Amino acid sequence: MPDQISEKTIARLCLYKRILGELEVSGVETIYSHELASRAGLTAAQLRRDIMAVGYFGSPTKGYEIAGLQHSIRVFLEGKNTGTSAVVGVGNIGRAILAYMGLETSSVHITACFDQDPAKIGSVIYGCRCYSLDELSYRCNQYNIQSAILAVPAGVAQLVAEKLVSCNIRGIMNFAPIQLQVPENVFVENINLAVTLEKVHYFARK
Amino acid sequence: MPDQISEKTIARLCLYKRILGELEVSGVETIYSHELASRAGLTAAQLRRDIMAVGYFGSPTKGYEIAGLQHSIRVFLEGKNTGTSAVVGVGNIGRAILAYMGLETSSVHITACFDQDPAKIGSVIYGCRCYSLDELSYRCNQYNIQSAILAVPAGVAQLVAEKLVSCNIRGIMNFAPIQLQVPENVFVENINLAVTLEKVHYFARK
Repeated sequence: MPDQISEKTIARLCLYKRILGELEVSGVETIYSHELASRAGLTAAQLRRDIMAVGYFGSPTKGYEIAGLQHSIRVFLEGKNTGTSAVVGVGNIGRAILAYMGLETSSVHITACFDQDPAKIGSVIYGCRCYSLDELSYRCNQYNIQSAILAVPAGVAQLVAEKLVSCNIRGIMNFAPIQLQVPENVFVENINLAVTLEKVHYFARK
Repeated sequence: MPDQISEKTIARLCLYKRILGELEVSGVETIYSHELASRAGLTAAQLRRDIMAVGYFGSPTKGYEIAGLQHSIRVFLEGKNTGTSAVVGVGNIGRAILAYMGLETSSVHITACFDQDPAKIGSVIYGCRCYSLDELSYRCNQYNIQSAILAVPAGVAQLVAEKLVSCNIRGIMNFAPIQLQVPENVFVENINLAVTLEKVHYFARK
């Protein structure tokens, strides 16, 4: 079943989990599907299909129990072997990403960061120990690193991505402004916030 | 014509512009459509349609002239009145965003940031002067601010978004983890990098 789940469904489930976490903190115990859908900016029908896919069923009178639904989504997304993530490249952008990620609540733990600069290796940057890229394979094993946030300069990004793949990393959040060439079984999400701002700004001026 | 252009087309044009900028820096003068498409991770047919939409035509033998194509895309996207953007909310996440954006090359200039904290107001944060939210309307006028990056806590995001809309801001890059309720003519792009990392990590483990 999970193999048939689309990227968009997974993205929505991650979003529900986050909204449910906030509701729980504010003391809410149950929520109706249409209310949760509205908070996520989606239709209730869409949300119900997604929740059914994780095998959770709410009560027609009380709606979803927040703790139970959160648990079901978490088990569905994380499985048993959760693994961790790492930031690769701790220049100014990598540091900004580490700062940002350290502030956000996420089920994915960032356990290490990597760089080539001897001045950074061994230091702790926003709570993450920095290791040499030469140690990548060893540390991936040690920390069970399964995904990476790539924040190296464009000129070396392809080379470093290949190194990540050779260490069995199968998911890359790519901040480098190039299109990575990776095997089909590696999932890449390109992030470019400056380009996104240009798009938002374009529509602001229409 | 530009009114019929879809959000996805605009996103791709922003991406081409960025890739062309990098090619120009590295001394390349012309590029074939299929090469540019490959760098953008798209088909050549898709790219040719997009480039035709901005009214630029390449040479069948030499391909696109990089400087000319860049100029055409820029004129198409920016028009005459470019306007500027601002970061609203300069807590830790807002600061990380300012740091990141300051490092990226973008045609959108971030001219100011806003906060409520008297300790921040008047200071310069990553090159941006911080103003009180009470001055929002005045400063939007002064700096021709047309879009905003919203990085305030979830609890006040809706209220601040309404303030932005009342100051004629029609594009919001929303980092607050809530679904904003705004008029139809306001473009909102929700950004949640922690949720994106969860998605990437999920697919890494499949």
